[in-house]
Amino acid sequence: MAEENIIYVGKKPTMNYVLAIVTQFNNNVDHITIKARGKAISKAVDISEITKHKFIQELKYGNIKLETEVVHGDRGDSNVSSIEIILTR
Amino acid sequence: MAEENIIYVGKKPTMNYVLAIVTQFNNNVDHITIKARGKAISKAVDISEITKHKFIQELKYGNIKLETEVVHGDRGDSNVSSIEIILTR
Repeated sequence: MAEENIIYVGKKPTMNYVLAIVTQFNNNVDHITIKARGKAISKAVDISEITKHKFIQELKYGNIKLETEVVHGDRGDSNVSSIEIILTR
Repeated sequence: MAEENIIYVGKKPTMNYVLAIVTQFNNNVDHITIKARGKAISKAVDISEITKHKFIQELKYGNIKLETEVVHGDRGDSNVSSIEIILTR
């Protein structure tokens, strides 16, 4: 229940994620969590809105959480914003 | 009450918006709405998180709304995602 319904948004095209989410909902999942960090946050919002408006109109937003994560890199730690969007049927 | 507490996020540097928000809260405003569209959505989340973590720790998130807006351009209408983040003291 925990891990399987999470979609991590990265560098793939927007529609890849949309189709992955639609497929999961068609497999009778009742909610999906979309997670993104940094510049991918805008893409996560696009993905959510496209899924909701063009594919599964009955979807609703659950909790939307904004946070700051610490990323450990070669040149020390840096902060990056993150979003977590829950879509429910 | 309505219009004055809205910050529209555009192309200016992130810290410009952060300082505008901090200034407003210092003038005894009790909530601020941050609005952004398209790629500026990621910046809006950065602005909210930086304001909350580095400047006014007591801030909390109110409602966070995701929507799709229609933009009328030279080459016809296009859809753009938008975010609305409410920060309250």
